[in-house]
Amino acid sequence: MIKKIAVIGAGSWGTALAVSLSGKGHSVKIWDINNEHLQELKDHRENIRFLPEVKFPDGIEISFTIEEAISGAGIVLFSAPAQHFRSAFDGAIPYLKSEMVLVNVAKGIEQKSLMRLSEIAFEKLPDAKYVVLSGPSHAEEVGRAMPTTVVSAAKDLELAEYIQDVFMSDRLRVYTNTDVAGVEFGGALKNIIALGAGISDGMGYGDNAKAALMTRGITEIARLGTKLGASASTFSGLTGIGDLIVTCTSMHSRNRRCGIMIGEGVKPSEATKKVGMVVEGMYTTEAAYQLAQKVGIEMPITEQIYHVINEKIDAREAVKSLMTRQKKHETEDVFQR
Amino acid sequence: MIKKIAVIGAGSWGTALAVSLSGKGHSVKIWDINNEHLQELKDHRENIRFLPEVKFPDGIEISFTIEEAISGAGIVLFSAPAQHFRSAFDGAIPYLKSEMVLVNVAKGIEQKSLMRLSEIAFEKLPDAKYVVLSGPSHAEEVGRAMPTTVVSAAKDLELAEYIQDVFMSDRLRVYTNTDVAGVEFGGALKNIIALGAGISDGMGYGDNAKAALMTRGITEIARLGTKLGASASTFSGLTGIGDLIVTCTSMHSRNRRCGIMIGEGVKPSEATKKVGMVVEGMYTTEAAYQLAQKVGIEMPITEQIYHVINEKIDAREAVKSLMTRQKKHETEDVFQR
Repeated sequence: MIKKIAVIGAGSWGTALAVSLSGKGHSVKIWDINNEHLQELKDHRENIRFLPEVKFPDGIEISFTIEEAISGAGIVLFSAPAQHFRSAFDGAIPYLKSEMVLVNVAKGIEQKSLMRLSEIAFEKLPDAKYVVLSGPSHAEEVGRAMPTTVVSAAKDLELAEYIQDVFMSDRLRVYTNTDVAGVEFGGALKNIIALGAGISDGMGYGDNAKAALMTRGITEIARLGTKLGASASTFSGLTGIGDLIVTCTSMHSRNRRCGIMIGEGVKPSEATKKVGMVVEGMYTTEAAYQLAQKVGIEMPITEQIYHVINEKIDAREAVKSLMTRQKKHETEDVFQR
Repeated sequence: MIKKIAVIGAGSWGTALAVSLSGKGHSVKIWDINNEHLQELKDHRENIRFLPEVKFPDGIEISFTIEEAISGAGIVLFSAPAQHFRSAFDGAIPYLKSEMVLVNVAKGIEQKSLMRLSEIAFEKLPDAKYVVLSGPSHAEEVGRAMPTTVVSAAKDLELAEYIQDVFMSDRLRVYTNTDVAGVEFGGALKNIIALGAGISDGMGYGDNAKAALMTRGITEIARLGTKLGASASTFSGLTGIGDLIVTCTSMHSRNRRCGIMIGEGVKPSEATKKVGMVVEGMYTTEAAYQLAQKVGIEMPITEQIYHVINEKIDAREAVKSLMTRQKKHETEDVFQR
């Protein structure tokens, strides 16, 4: 069952998946909007910028036009950053055929529109065979064939199972799920809690505080997600709490590193500058805060982080406010069903 | 609302809670089965063995008999190790009055009987006012008043709320839950996964593998727990995934340290000896394996860890077996309701 796969976007995650797929015998073509970067991939047979020390197997080709990459492919994998998904998708549309399966591995909520990425895709191509691949998966580890699990999610279970078969190996275990909204919300909103976990660490708080933040954090993410059509069970899974665990406990996470600086007393605007790259959680916090207000959902942790990163309150005040809220029953809402 | 509280068992957790309660103005008496240890507590006004560098506030008294500790108390807090709960409870029974509220903070399943600790208590005193206090709470951090959350669980919500009021402070946030079985299973069975997380770390696997182990681990714990009367939602909360996160990511955990040695190739029997203290997860794995067999529940991770610690298979074989199991839908069972 050898497939032809186009990978659109040669960051660390797209590259790691290309290597993994090629290792299973699939034929993979990589394209990226940056021509110079593509030339480097071709010259070095390695992504020295974003996934160093992982050599490309022979089955990986570099394409210098998106048309060439997509032409003849059975599967088109989108691995552009979330805020660039719309333009990457627009660029691909002229070459897509209705039988091609589209897989998106980006995680985020689009700014301003507050749309999930699948909503953007279906708005443009209502009949797209669209799959989201998500889960606790640092690219650095997948590129090195370290054991990893992910979820293939599509409204149509058979489609999710098709991608499960294509990607699964004895190093990459793939589960299926039909809750596309839940998988997308989990992957995007975890970055809010990663910022918060960093802030907690930066303030010198311990493992107890961070575990509380993660557990109550996924609870409020689930509360928003279920209100917007997701299934609560998804947030207890690999793309929910699983991905949150990986993000909050790793120094790979830019969101967490940014949070640590804020917790140490650096101004949020300064901390973002110092990280030097996009801190997705800053956008996601704003998006979630707006969504929660819009649909009338209580998200106390998100709200406090929103006020901290907008320099309205100090991190210590935020913690005090969270610890002294009205007393609660643990499962009064979302998981109680 | 000043209460008189007896603490039975002066390990690190009982001591940390005594300090926290005394800090709220409650009057606390500590008793322990080891007289020499009690004399040390009295002489140093500090638990130098198990919670060093945390000075006792004036509100803590040391009692040299269990009768003296319990006499006149409104609340009796049991903090003996799980396998010693039965004897500690037996020792207290002659002095308990029906109006006293009993709080247990030990986590475990009794060996051989495979009973939860509340089952032991209710077998002896069917009308006991019995509360379980559990959650992600390293004693070292609670003793230092670092922000922590726990759950007060009782069949009777009002009783759980009573203990919530007694314990809650701006550093210790207490939620209530009425799912006693779920809270007890979460606290006990997490140690299986902590062993597994250690093994994964010891084998040199990464954050992806560990997050997968934790997420799929809590799923199978919930599968067993719900079969035995617990509510699935509890396993998504502080006493389930929350406590699992703290245990699997901290070097404080003996279970995890034991697992690391096994992952590095030390024989399980040797590793247990080297830890030098009780590795509760070794017993819990056996108990859960037996319970799962008895009620016909699939627990693939527990089963593999059981075989590894009993030296039936090698850790690498266990990982391969887990990664290459039959393909699955993610939420086919427990959280899908």
